[in-house]
Amino acid sequence: IIYVITPTYSRPHQKAELTRLKSVFLHVPSLHWILVEDATHKSKLVMNFLESSGLSYTHLHQSTPPDWKLQDSDPKWRKPRGVLQRNAGIKWLRRKLRGERDLRGVVYFADDDNTYSTELFKEMRDTKTVSVWPVGLVGGVMVERPLVSRAPTPHVTGWLAGWKPDRTFATDMAGFAVNLALLLRRSDAEFSFTSSIGHMECDFLEKLVTLSQLEPKADLCTKVLVWHTRTERPNMKDEERLRKAGTPSDQGIEV
Amino acid sequence: IIYVITPTYSRPHQKAELTRLKSVFLHVPSLHWILVEDATHKSKLVMNFLESSGLSYTHLHQSTPPDWKLQDSDPKWRKPRGVLQRNAGIKWLRRKLRGERDLRGVVYFADDDNTYSTELFKEMRDTKTVSVWPVGLVGGVMVERPLVSRAPTPHVTGWLAGWKPDRTFATDMAGFAVNLALLLRRSDAEFSFTSSIGHMECDFLEKLVTLSQLEPKADLCTKVLVWHTRTERPNMKDEERLRKAGTPSDQGIEV
Ligand SMILES: O=c1ccn([C@@H]2O[C@H](COP(=O)(O)OP(=O)(O)O)[C@@H](O)[C@H]2O)c(=O)[nH]1
Ligand SMILES: O=c1ccn([C@@H]2O[C@H](COP(=O)(O)OP(=O)(O)O)[C@@H](O)[C@H]2O)c(=O)[nH]1
Ligand SMILES: [Mn+2]
Ligand SMILES: [Mn+2]
Repeated sequence: IIYVITPTYSRPHQKAELTRLKSVFLHVPSLHWILVEDATHKSKLVMNFLESSGLSYTHLHQSTPPDWKLQDSDPKWRKPRGVLQRNAGIKWLRRKLRGERDLRGVVYFADDDNTYSTELFKEMRDTKTVSVWPVGLVGGVMVERPLVSRAPTPHVTGWLAGWKPDRTFATDMAGFAVNLALLLRRSDAEFSFTSSIGHMECDFLEKLVTLSQLEPKADLCTKVLVWHTRTERPNMKDEERLRKAGTPSDQGIEV
Repeated sequence: IIYVITPTYSRPHQKAELTRLKSVFLHVPSLHWILVEDATHKSKLVMNFLESSGLSYTHLHQSTPPDWKLQDSDPKWRKPRGVLQRNAGIKWLRRKLRGERDLRGVVYFADDDNTYSTELFKEMRDTKTVSVWPVGLVGGVMVERPLVSRAPTPHVTGWLAGWKPDRTFATDMAGFAVNLALLLRRSDAEFSFTSSIGHMECDFLEKLVTLSQLEPKADLCTKVLVWHTRTERPNMKDEERLRKAGTPSDQGIEV
Protein backbone atom coordinates (compact mmCIF):
# COMPACT_ATOMS: atom_id res chain seq x y z
CA ILE A 1 0.00 0.00 0.00
CA ILE A 2 1.07 3.58 -0.65
CA TYR A 3 -0.15 5.90 2.11
CA VAL A 4 -0.29 9.45 0.79
CA ILE A 5 -0.50 12.14 3.48
CA THR A 6 -1.80 15.50 2.24
CA PRO A 7 -2.29 18.68 4.26
CA THR A 8 -4.98 20.93 2.81
CA TYR A 9 -6.71 24.16 3.73
CA SER A 10 -9.75 26.11 2.67
CA ARG A 11 -9.30 28.65 -0.13
CA PRO A 12 -11.11 29.46 -3.40
CA HIS A 13 -9.15 26.90 -5.42
CA GLN A 14 -9.08 24.09 -2.84
CA LYS A 15 -11.59 21.87 -4.62
CA ALA A 16 -9.80 22.40 -7.93
CA GLU A 17 -6.52 21.25 -6.36
CA LEU A 18 -8.13 18.20 -4.80
CA THR A 19 -9.80 17.36 -8.11
CA ARG A 20 -6.42 17.31 -9.86
CA LEU A 21 -4.98 15.02 -7.19
CA LYS A 22 -7.96 12.71 -7.50
CA SER A 23 -7.41 12.29 -11.24
CA VAL A 24 -3.86 11.07 -10.64
CA PHE A 25 -4.54 8.95 -7.57
CA LEU A 26 -7.34 7.07 -9.37
CA HIS A 27 -4.68 5.70 -11.73
CA VAL A 28 -2.61 4.29 -8.84
CA PRO A 29 -3.42 0.80 -7.50
CA SER A 30 -3.63 0.31 -3.70
CA LEU A 31 -3.22 3.90 -2.71
CA HIS A 32 -4.75 5.11 0.56
CA TRP A 33 -5.15 8.86 0.83
CA ILE A 34 -4.87 10.48 4.25
CA LEU A 35 -6.25 13.97 3.72
CA VAL A 36 -5.73 16.27 6.70
CA GLU A 37 -7.59 19.55 6.81
CA ASP A 38 -5.94 22.49 8.52
CA ALA A 39 -9.15 23.38 10.32
CA THR A 40 -10.94 22.99 13.63
CA HIS A 41 -13.44 20.62 12.05
CA LYS A 42 -13.94 18.60 8.90
CA SER A 43 -15.59 20.61 6.16
CA LYS A 44 -18.64 19.53 4.20
CA LEU A 45 -16.80 20.30 0.97
CA VAL A 46 -13.93 17.91 1.64
CA MET A 47 -16.23 15.30 3.14
CA ASN A 48 -18.48 15.18 0.08
CA PHE A 49 -15.52 15.34 -2.24
CA LEU A 50 -13.85 12.30 -0.67
CA GLU A 51 -17.09 10.35 -0.37
CA SER A 52 -17.74 10.55 -4.10
CA SER A 53 -14.09 10.24 -5.12
CA GLY A 54 -13.91 6.49 -5.60
CA LEU A 55 -10.65 6.51 -3.62
CA SER A 56 -9.70 4.68 -0.45
CA TYR A 57 -9.21 7.44 2.12
CA THR A 58 -9.06 8.67 5.70
CA HIS A 59 -10.31 12.16 6.44
CA LEU A 60 -8.67 13.95 9.37
CA HIS A 61 -8.44 17.50 10.64
CA GLN A 62 -5.81 19.27 12.70
CA SER A 63 -5.68 23.01 12.92
CA THR A 64 -2.52 25.09 12.96
CA PRO A 65 -2.33 27.31 16.07
CA PRO A 66 -2.71 31.04 15.22
CA ASP A 67 0.92 31.77 16.14
CA TRP A 68 2.12 29.43 13.43
CA LYS A 69 -0.48 30.26 10.81
CA LEU A 70 0.91 32.08 7.80
CA GLN A 71 -0.62 35.54 7.48
CA ASP A 72 -1.45 37.10 4.12
CA SER A 73 1.20 39.70 4.87
CA ASP A 74 3.96 37.14 5.59
CA PRO A 75 6.29 36.10 2.83
CA LYS A 76 5.72 32.42 1.99
CA TRP A 77 8.97 31.16 3.50
CA ARG A 78 8.34 32.74 6.90
CA LYS A 79 6.50 29.85 8.43
CA PRO A 80 6.49 26.16 7.66
CA ARG A 81 3.17 24.94 6.32
CA GLY A 82 1.35 21.64 6.83
CA VAL A 83 3.55 20.55 9.75
CA LEU A 84 0.91 19.46 12.25
CA GLN A 85 -1.25 18.05 9.47
CA ARG A 86 1.50 15.71 8.26
CA ASN A 87 2.18 14.70 11.87
CA ALA A 88 -1.51 13.98 12.38
CA GLY A 89 -1.30 11.65 9.40
CA ILE A 90 1.74 9.90 10.84
CA LYS A 91 0.04 9.58 14.24
CA TRP A 92 -3.02 8.05 12.61
CA LEU A 93 -0.80 5.44 10.95
CA ARG A 94 0.99 4.64 14.22
CA ARG A 95 -2.31 4.18 16.03
CA LYS A 96 -4.10 2.27 13.32
CA LEU A 97 -1.24 -0.14 12.59
CA ARG A 98 -0.14 -0.75 16.20
CA GLY A 99 0.35 -4.48 16.70
CA GLU A 100 -0.02 -5.12 12.96
CA ARG A 101 2.55 -7.63 11.70
CA ASP A 102 2.34 -6.96 7.98
CA LEU A 103 3.82 -3.49 7.62
CA ARG A 104 4.67 -3.63 3.94
CA GLY A 105 3.98 -0.21 2.50
CA VAL A 106 5.28 3.24 1.75
CA VAL A 107 4.45 6.70 3.06
CA TYR A 108 4.55 9.77 0.83
CA PHE A 109 3.86 13.39 1.75
CA ALA A 110 2.00 15.04 -1.11
CA ASP A 111 1.16 18.74 -0.87
CA ASP A 112 -2.15 19.56 -2.50
CA ASP A 113 -0.79 21.96 -5.12
CA ASN A 114 2.07 20.00 -6.68
CA THR A 115 1.94 18.12 -9.97
CA TYR A 116 2.35 14.35 -9.74
CA SER A 117 2.81 11.89 -12.58
CA THR A 118 1.42 8.38 -12.25
CA GLU A 119 4.92 6.99 -12.91
CA LEU A 120 6.12 8.54 -9.65
CA PHE A 121 4.03 6.10 -7.65
CA LYS A 122 5.45 3.11 -9.50
CA GLU A 123 8.93 4.29 -8.57
CA MET A 124 8.26 4.67 -4.86
CA ARG A 125 6.28 1.47 -4.35
CA ASP A 126 9.18 -0.81 -3.41
CA THR A 127 10.94 1.58 -1.04
CA LYS A 128 12.97 -0.35 1.54
CA THR A 129 14.29 2.59 3.58
CA VAL A 130 13.87 6.03 2.02
CA SER A 131 13.75 6.52 -1.72
CA VAL A 132 14.57 9.80 -3.44
CA TRP A 133 14.23 11.40 -6.89
CA PRO A 134 14.39 14.80 -8.63
CA VAL A 135 11.76 17.50 -8.03
CA GLY A 136 11.06 20.08 -10.72
CA LEU A 137 10.51 23.83 -10.23
CA VAL A 138 11.63 24.10 -6.63
CA GLY A 139 14.17 26.08 -4.64
CA GLY A 140 14.67 28.73 -7.32
CA VAL A 141 15.89 26.26 -9.95
CA MET A 142 14.42 24.14 -12.73
CA VAL A 143 15.19 20.94 -10.81
CA GLU A 144 16.67 19.89 -7.49
CA ARG A 145 18.06 16.38 -7.53
CA PRO A 146 20.16 13.78 -5.77
CA LEU A 147 23.60 13.18 -7.26
CA VAL A 148 24.07 9.49 -7.93
CA SER A 149 27.18 7.40 -8.30
CA ARG A 150 26.80 4.05 -10.08
CA ALA A 151 29.68 2.15 -8.48
CA PRO A 152 29.96 -0.17 -6.71
CA THR A 153 26.16 -0.10 -6.49
CA PRO A 154 24.02 2.97 -7.26
CA HIS A 155 24.04 5.33 -4.29
CA VAL A 156 23.42 8.99 -3.52
CA THR A 157 26.56 11.06 -3.00
CA GLY A 158 25.07 14.52 -2.52
CA TRP A 159 22.65 17.03 -3.96
CA LEU A 160 22.29 19.38 -6.85
CA ALA A 161 20.38 22.37 -5.47
CA GLY A 162 20.44 26.12 -5.96
CA TRP A 163 19.77 26.89 -2.33
CA LYS A 164 21.91 25.43 0.47
CA PRO A 165 23.15 22.38 -1.44
CA ASP A 166 25.19 21.48 1.64
CA ARG A 167 22.15 20.33 3.62
CA THR A 168 22.49 16.63 4.52
CA PHE A 169 19.26 15.96 2.64
CA ALA A 170 18.75 18.87 0.27
CA THR A 171 15.36 17.72 -0.93
CA ASP A 172 11.81 18.99 -0.91
CA MET A 173 8.87 17.22 0.71
CA ALA A 174 7.88 15.97 -2.76
CA GLY A 175 11.25 14.31 -3.32
CA PHE A 176 11.17 11.28 -1.04
CA ALA A 177 9.07 8.38 0.27
CA VAL A 178 9.58 6.36 3.43
CA ASN A 179 9.18 2.66 4.09
CA LEU A 180 6.18 2.16 6.37
CA ALA A 181 7.81 -0.24 8.84
CA LEU A 182 10.82 2.04 9.19
CA LEU A 183 8.65 5.08 9.87
CA LEU A 184 6.66 3.25 12.53
CA ARG A 185 9.78 1.85 14.16
CA ARG A 186 11.30 5.30 14.63
CA SER A 187 8.72 6.62 17.04
CA ASP A 188 10.32 10.09 17.15
CA ALA A 189 10.14 10.63 13.41
CA GLU A 190 7.86 13.58 12.80
CA PHE A 191 8.02 17.13 11.47
CA SER A 192 8.88 20.07 13.66
CA PHE A 193 7.95 23.77 13.69
CA THR A 194 11.29 24.52 15.21
CA SER A 195 13.44 23.23 12.37
CA SER A 196 15.38 26.15 11.01
CA ILE A 197 14.05 27.61 7.77
CA GLY A 198 14.28 25.11 4.91
CA HIS A 199 15.52 22.29 7.13
CA MET A 200 12.22 20.59 7.92
CA GLU A 201 12.68 17.75 5.42
CA CYS A 202 16.31 17.41 6.40
CA ASP A 203 15.66 17.14 10.15
CA PHE A 204 12.92 14.59 9.51
CA LEU A 205 15.06 12.41 7.28
CA GLU A 206 17.99 12.49 9.70
CA LYS A 207 15.84 10.53 12.12
CA LEU A 208 15.36 7.79 9.55
CA VAL A 209 18.43 7.24 7.39
CA THR A 210 21.96 8.20 6.45
CA LEU A 211 22.86 9.45 3.00
CA SER A 212 24.32 6.12 1.93
CA GLN A 213 21.08 4.29 2.75
CA LEU A 214 18.99 6.34 0.32
CA GLU A 215 17.52 4.53 -2.68
CA PRO A 216 17.83 6.57 -5.88
CA LYS A 217 14.74 6.12 -8.09
CA ALA A 218 13.50 7.49 -11.43
CA ASP A 219 16.30 6.01 -13.56
CA LEU A 220 19.02 6.89 -11.07
CA CYS A 221 17.49 10.34 -10.55
CA THR A 222 17.62 11.33 -14.21
CA LYS A 223 13.84 11.75 -14.69
CA VAL A 224 11.51 14.42 -13.35
CA LEU A 225 8.23 12.81 -12.25
CA VAL A 226 6.98 15.47 -9.85
CA TRP A 227 6.85 19.27 -10.04
CA HIS A 228 6.57 21.76 -7.20
CA THR A 229 3.91 23.85 -8.92
CA ARG A 230 1.90 26.56 -7.19
CA THR A 231 -1.48 27.91 -8.11
CA GLU A 232 -2.13 31.64 -8.38
CA ARG A 233 -4.59 33.00 -5.89
CA PRO A 234 -7.57 33.78 -8.13
CA ASN A 235 -8.69 37.36 -8.57
CA MET A 236 -11.86 37.94 -6.51
CA LYS A 237 -12.34 41.64 -7.19
CA ASP A 238 -15.87 41.48 -8.46
CA GLU A 239 -16.80 38.83 -5.93
CA GLU A 240 -16.14 41.28 -3.11
CA ARG A 241 -18.59 43.69 -4.66
CA LEU A 242 -21.18 40.96 -5.11
CA ARG A 243 -20.73 39.83 -1.50
CA LYS A 244 -21.27 43.32 -0.19
CA ALA A 245 -24.44 43.51 -2.24
CA GLY A 246 -25.59 40.22 -0.65
CA THR A 247 -25.47 38.31 -3.95
CA PRO A 248 -22.33 36.16 -3.96
CA SER A 249 -21.84 34.28 -7.22
CA ASP A 250 -21.49 30.95 -5.42
CA GLN A 251 -24.78 31.14 -3.56
CA GLY A 252 -26.21 27.61 -3.62
CA ILE A 253 -23.36 26.25 -5.75
CA GLU A 254 -20.11 24.74 -4.50
CA VAL A 255 -16.95 25.85 -6.30
CA ILE B 1 -15.59 11.39 -30.12
CA ILE B 2 -14.64 14.39 -28.06
CA TYR B 3 -12.03 16.51 -29.85
CA VAL B 4 -10.16 18.61 -27.31
CA ILE B 5 -8.21 21.53 -28.77
CA THR B 6 -5.46 22.88 -26.50
CA PRO B 7 -3.09 25.78 -27.22
CA THR B 8 0.20 25.46 -25.35
CA TYR B 9 3.51 27.29 -25.18
CA SER B 10 6.97 26.69 -23.81
CA ARG B 11 7.66 27.76 -20.23
CA PRO B 12 9.20 26.15 -17.15
CA HIS B 13 5.93 24.54 -16.03
CA GLN B 14 4.66 23.44 -19.45
CA LYS B 15 5.33 19.74 -18.94
CA ALA B 16 3.74 19.85 -15.48
CA GLU B 17 0.58 21.35 -16.99
CA LEU B 18 0.45 18.79 -19.78
CA THR B 19 1.00 16.00 -17.25
CA ARG B 20 -2.03 17.13 -15.27
CA LEU B 21 -4.17 17.21 -18.42
CA LYS B 22 -2.98 13.73 -19.37
CA SER B 23 -4.11 12.31 -16.03
CA VAL B 24 -7.65 13.55 -16.62
CA PHE B 25 -7.87 12.75 -20.33
CA LEU B 26 -6.77 9.16 -19.72
CA HIS B 27 -9.99 8.68 -17.76
CA VAL B 28 -12.15 9.83 -20.69
CA PRO B 29 -13.21 7.30 -23.34
CA SER B 30 -12.86 8.24 -27.03
CA LEU B 31 -11.13 11.52 -26.54
CA HIS B 32 -8.83 12.85 -29.25
CA TRP B 33 -6.42 15.55 -28.13
CA ILE B 34 -5.38 18.22 -30.62
CA LEU B 35 -2.41 19.89 -28.97
CA VAL B 36 -1.24 23.02 -30.77
CA GLU B 37 2.10 24.52 -29.84
CA ASP B 38 2.52 28.27 -30.10
CA ALA B 39 5.89 27.88 -31.81
CA THR B 40 7.55 27.88 -35.21
CA HIS B 41 8.15 24.14 -34.95
CA LYS B 42 7.12 21.15 -32.89
CA SER B 43 9.25 20.73 -29.78
CA LYS B 44 10.95 17.52 -28.76
CA LEU B 45 9.49 17.87 -25.29
CA VAL B 46 5.89 17.89 -26.48
CA MET B 47 6.56 15.25 -29.13
CA ASN B 48 8.01 12.78 -26.62
CA PHE B 49 5.36 13.62 -24.07
CA LEU B 50 2.52 12.85 -26.48
CA GLU B 51 4.16 9.75 -27.87
CA SER B 52 4.40 8.13 -24.46
CA SER B 53 1.07 9.48 -23.21
CA GLY B 54 -1.19 6.60 -24.16
CA LEU B 55 -3.65 9.12 -25.58
CA SER B 56 -5.06 9.47 -29.07
CA TYR B 57 -3.68 12.79 -30.32
CA THR B 58 -2.71 15.14 -33.11
CA HIS B 59 0.32 17.36 -32.65
CA LEU B 60 0.27 20.71 -34.44
CA HIS B 61 2.15 23.98 -34.23
CA GLN B 62 1.16 27.50 -35.14
CA SER B 63 3.10 30.47 -33.91
CA THR B 64 1.59 33.75 -32.81
CA PRO B 65 3.00 36.70 -34.80
CA PRO B 66 5.23 38.96 -32.65
CA ASP B 67 2.72 41.82 -32.79
CA TRP B 68 0.15 39.68 -31.05
CA LYS B 69 2.44 37.93 -28.65
CA LEU B 70 1.92 38.88 -25.01
CA GLN B 71 5.03 40.55 -23.61
CA ASP B 72 6.17 40.02 -20.04
CA SER B 73 5.46 43.70 -19.44
CA ASP B 74 1.87 43.52 -20.73
CA PRO B 75 -0.97 42.95 -18.31
CA LYS B 76 -2.58 39.56 -19.01
CA TRP B 77 -5.79 40.93 -20.48
CA ARG B 78 -4.01 43.07 -23.06
CA LYS B 79 -3.86 40.49 -25.81
CA PRO B 80 -5.94 37.41 -26.49
CA ARG B 81 -3.97 34.18 -26.09
CA GLY B 82 -4.22 30.94 -28.01
CA VAL B 83 -6.30 32.41 -30.86
CA LEU B 84 -4.37 31.13 -33.88
CA GLN B 85 -3.68 27.84 -32.12
CA ARG B 86 -7.38 27.11 -31.57
CA ASN B 87 -8.06 28.09 -35.18
CA ALA B 88 -5.32 25.74 -36.36
CA GLY B 89 -7.11 22.97 -34.49
CA ILE B 90 -10.41 23.86 -36.12
CA LYS B 91 -8.78 23.98 -39.57
CA TRP B 92 -7.25 20.56 -39.00
CA LEU B 93 -10.70 19.19 -38.21
CA ARG B 94 -12.25 20.78 -41.30
CA ARG B 95 -9.57 19.32 -43.53
CA LYS B 96 -9.41 15.91 -41.98
CA LEU B 97 -13.18 15.39 -41.87
CA ARG B 98 -13.99 16.88 -45.29
CA GLY B 99 -16.37 14.56 -47.09
CA GLU B 100 -16.84 12.44 -43.97
CA ARG B 101 -20.47 11.46 -43.45
CA ASP B 102 -20.39 10.45 -39.83
CA LEU B 103 -19.79 13.72 -38.01
CA ARG B 104 -20.99 12.68 -34.58
CA GLY B 105 -18.73 14.32 -32.05
CA VAL B 106 -18.04 17.33 -29.89
CA VAL B 107 -15.32 19.98 -29.88
CA TYR B 108 -14.01 21.49 -26.65
CA PHE B 109 -11.36 24.17 -26.21
CA ALA B 110 -9.25 23.32 -23.17
CA ASP B 111 -6.52 25.73 -22.09
CA ASP B 112 -3.52 23.93 -20.66
CA ASP B 113 -3.65 25.48 -17.19
CA ASN B 114 -7.27 24.96 -16.16
CA THR B 115 -8.58 22.23 -13.87
CA TYR B 116 -10.92 19.71 -15.47
CA SER B 117 -12.99 17.03 -13.74
CA THR B 118 -13.69 13.78 -15.55
CA GLU B 119 -17.43 14.39 -15.07
CA LEU B 120 -17.20 17.44 -17.33
CA PHE B 121 -16.55 15.23 -20.33
CA LYS B 122 -19.59 13.06 -19.59
CA GLU B 123 -21.71 16.19 -19.58
CA MET B 124 -20.51 17.52 -22.92
CA ARG B 125 -20.54 14.25 -24.83
CA ASP B 126 -24.07 14.44 -26.24
CA THR B 127 -23.97 18.10 -27.29
CA LYS B 128 -26.40 18.73 -30.15
CA THR B 129 -25.69 22.42 -30.75
CA VAL B 130 -23.65 24.17 -28.07
CA SER B 131 -23.72 23.08 -24.47
CA VAL B 132 -22.83 25.32 -21.54
CA TRP B 133 -22.09 25.04 -17.80
CA PRO B 134 -20.58 27.00 -14.91
CA VAL B 135 -16.85 27.82 -14.74
CA GLY B 136 -15.21 28.36 -11.38
CA LEU B 137 -12.66 31.06 -10.46
CA VAL B 138 -13.02 33.23 -13.53
CA GLY B 139 -13.81 36.85 -14.32
CA GLY B 140 -13.11 38.08 -10.80
CA VAL B 141 -15.78 35.91 -9.17
CA MET B 142 -16.03 32.46 -7.60
CA VAL B 143 -18.18 31.22 -10.47
CA GLU B 144 -19.59 32.49 -13.75
CA ARG B 145 -22.63 30.59 -14.90
CA PRO B 146 -25.58 30.44 -17.24
CA LEU B 147 -28.95 31.28 -15.70
CA VAL B 148 -31.43 28.53 -16.45
CA SER B 149 -35.19 28.50 -16.52
CA ARG B 150 -36.91 25.11 -16.21
CA ALA B 151 -40.15 25.84 -18.04
CA PRO B 152 -41.43 24.92 -20.52
CA THR B 153 -38.19 23.00 -21.15
CA PRO B 154 -34.83 23.86 -19.54
CA HIS B 155 -33.22 26.77 -21.34
CA VAL B 156 -30.64 29.47 -20.73
CA THR B 157 -32.07 32.92 -20.08
CA GLY B 158 -28.89 34.89 -19.38
CA TRP B 159 -25.68 34.91 -17.38
CA LEU B 160 -24.44 35.38 -13.89
CA ALA B 161 -21.09 37.11 -14.24
CA GLY B 162 -19.16 39.78 -12.37
CA TRP B 163 -17.76 41.37 -15.48
CA LYS B 164 -20.02 42.52 -18.35
CA PRO B 165 -22.90 40.15 -17.61
CA ASP B 166 -24.74 41.74 -20.53
CA ARG B 167 -22.59 39.98 -23.15
CA THR B 168 -24.79 37.73 -25.33
CA PHE B 169 -22.67 34.77 -24.24
CA ALA B 170 -20.95 35.80 -21.02
CA THR B 171 -18.89 32.65 -20.76
CA ASP B 172 -15.25 31.68 -20.71
CA MET B 173 -13.56 29.35 -23.21
CA ALA B 174 -13.83 26.59 -20.61
CA GLY B 175 -17.58 26.96 -20.33
CA PHE B 176 -18.91 25.50 -23.59
CA ALA B 177 -18.58 22.68 -26.14
CA VAL B 178 -19.74 22.65 -29.75
CA ASN B 179 -21.32 19.91 -31.80
CA LEU B 180 -18.82 18.78 -34.42
CA ALA B 181 -21.19 18.79 -37.43
CA LEU B 182 -22.43 22.26 -36.51
CA LEU B 183 -18.89 23.62 -36.25
CA LEU B 184 -17.91 22.18 -39.61
CA ARG B 185 -21.09 23.44 -41.28
CA ARG B 186 -20.40 27.03 -40.21
CA SER B 187 -17.27 27.54 -42.22
CA ASP B 188 -16.74 31.05 -40.84
CA ALA B 189 -16.71 29.93 -37.21
CA GLU B 190 -13.29 30.67 -35.79
CA PHE B 191 -11.66 32.92 -33.22
CA SER B 192 -10.52 36.43 -34.02
CA PHE B 193 -7.75 38.69 -32.73
CA THR B 194 -9.94 41.66 -33.48
CA SER B 195 -12.75 40.77 -31.12
CA SER B 196 -12.96 43.50 -28.52
CA ILE B 197 -11.43 42.65 -25.15
CA GLY B 198 -13.31 39.82 -23.45
CA HIS B 199 -15.61 39.22 -26.42
CA MET B 200 -13.70 36.44 -28.16
CA GLU B 201 -15.90 33.62 -26.87
CA CYS B 202 -18.98 35.70 -27.48
CA ASP B 203 -18.15 36.56 -31.10
CA PHE B 204 -17.33 32.92 -31.80
CA LEU B 205 -20.57 31.59 -30.33
CA GLU B 206 -22.67 34.16 -32.18
CA LYS B 207 -21.65 32.45 -35.40
CA LEU B 208 -23.06 29.16 -34.13
CA VAL B 209 -26.17 29.59 -32.01
CA THR B 210 -28.68 31.84 -30.37
CA LEU B 211 -29.15 31.99 -26.61
CA SER B 212 -32.30 29.88 -26.72
CA GLN B 213 -30.51 27.06 -28.55
CA LEU B 214 -27.93 26.54 -25.79
CA GLU B 215 -28.05 23.25 -23.90
CA PRO B 216 -27.57 23.73 -20.15
CA LYS B 217 -25.49 20.89 -18.66
CA ALA B 218 -24.12 19.97 -15.21
CA ASP B 219 -27.50 19.58 -13.50
CA LEU B 220 -28.99 22.65 -15.14
CA CYS B 221 -25.80 24.60 -14.49
CA THR B 222 -25.80 24.04 -10.73
CA LYS B 223 -22.50 22.12 -10.56
CA VAL B 224 -18.93 23.35 -11.06
CA LEU B 225 -16.96 20.80 -13.06
CA VAL B 226 -14.19 23.02 -14.41
CA TRP B 227 -12.04 25.72 -12.80
CA HIS B 228 -10.13 28.53 -14.51
CA THR B 229 -6.99 28.00 -12.43
CA ARG B 230 -3.66 29.59 -13.23
CA THR B 231 -0.22 28.42 -12.26
CA GLU B 232 2.33 30.75 -10.68
CA ARG B 233 5.40 31.39 -12.74
CA PRO B 234 8.04 29.51 -10.74
CA ASN B 235 10.87 31.41 -9.11
CA MET B 236 14.06 30.90 -11.16
CA LYS B 237 16.37 33.17 -9.19
CA ASP B 238 19.10 30.66 -8.49
CA GLU B 239 18.72 29.14 -11.94
CA GLU B 240 19.80 32.41 -13.52
CA ARG B 241 22.97 32.31 -11.48
CA LEU B 242 23.60 28.67 -12.44
CA ARG B 243 23.02 29.44 -16.11
CA LYS B 244 25.49 32.27 -16.04
CA ALA B 245 28.01 29.90 -14.48
CA GLY B 246 27.38 27.42 -17.30
CA THR B 247 25.85 24.79 -14.99
CA PRO B 248 22.10 24.90 -15.43
CA SER B 249 20.29 22.52 -13.06
CA ASP B 250 18.40 20.89 -15.93
CA GLN B 251 21.47 19.95 -17.98
CA GLY B 252 20.74 16.51 -19.40
CA ILE B 253 17.38 16.21 -17.64
CA GLU B 254 14.01 17.31 -18.97
CA VAL B 255 11.76 19.18 -16.52
O1 LIG C 1 -2.19 27.44 6.25
C1 LIG C 1 -1.88 26.46 5.56
C2 LIG C 1 -1.09 26.58 4.37
C3 LIG C 1 -0.77 25.42 3.66
N1 LIG C 1 -1.23 24.20 4.05
C4 LIG C 1 -0.90 22.99 3.25
O2 LIG C 1 0.45 22.71 3.43
C5 LIG C 1 1.04 22.23 2.21
C6 LIG C 1 2.20 23.12 1.81
O3 LIG C 1 1.75 24.44 1.63
P1 LIG C 1 2.05 25.28 0.29
O4 LIG C 1 1.77 24.42 -0.89
O5 LIG C 1 1.37 26.59 0.37
O6 LIG C 1 3.63 25.48 0.45
P2 LIG C 1 4.74 25.68 -0.65
O7 LIG C 1 5.68 24.53 -0.49
O8 LIG C 1 4.09 25.68 -2.02
O9 LIG C 1 5.32 27.00 -0.32
C7 LIG C 1 -0.08 22.21 1.16
O10 LIG C 1 -0.59 20.91 1.01
C8 LIG C 1 -1.11 23.16 1.75
O11 LIG C 1 -2.44 22.81 1.40
C9 LIG C 1 -1.99 24.07 5.21
O12 LIG C 1 -2.40 22.97 5.57
N2 LIG C 1 -2.30 25.20 5.92
O1 LIG D 1 1.83 33.14 -25.68
C1 LIG D 1 0.95 32.31 -25.40
C2 LIG D 1 0.22 32.40 -24.18
C3 LIG D 1 -0.76 31.43 -23.92
N1 LIG D 1 -1.01 30.41 -24.79
C4 LIG D 1 -2.01 29.37 -24.49
O2 LIG D 1 -3.29 29.96 -24.59
C5 LIG D 1 -4.18 29.45 -23.60
C6 LIG D 1 -4.71 30.59 -22.76
O3 LIG D 1 -3.62 31.27 -22.13
P1 LIG D 1 -3.59 31.58 -20.56
O4 LIG D 1 -3.96 30.33 -19.83
O5 LIG D 1 -2.29 32.22 -20.20
O6 LIG D 1 -4.76 32.65 -20.44
P2 LIG D 1 -5.72 32.98 -19.23
O7 LIG D 1 -7.11 32.68 -19.71
O8 LIG D 1 -5.35 32.10 -18.05
O9 LIG D 1 -5.48 34.40 -18.97
C7 LIG D 1 -3.37 28.45 -22.76
O10 LIG D 1 -3.67 27.13 -23.17
C8 LIG D 1 -1.92 28.81 -23.07
O11 LIG D 1 -1.05 27.69 -23.04
C9 LIG D 1 -0.29 30.34 -26.00
O12 LIG D 1 -0.52 29.42 -26.78
N2 LIG D 1 0.66 31.29 -26.26
MN1 LIG E 1 2.98 24.08 -2.57
MN1 LIG F 1 -5.31 30.06 -18.28
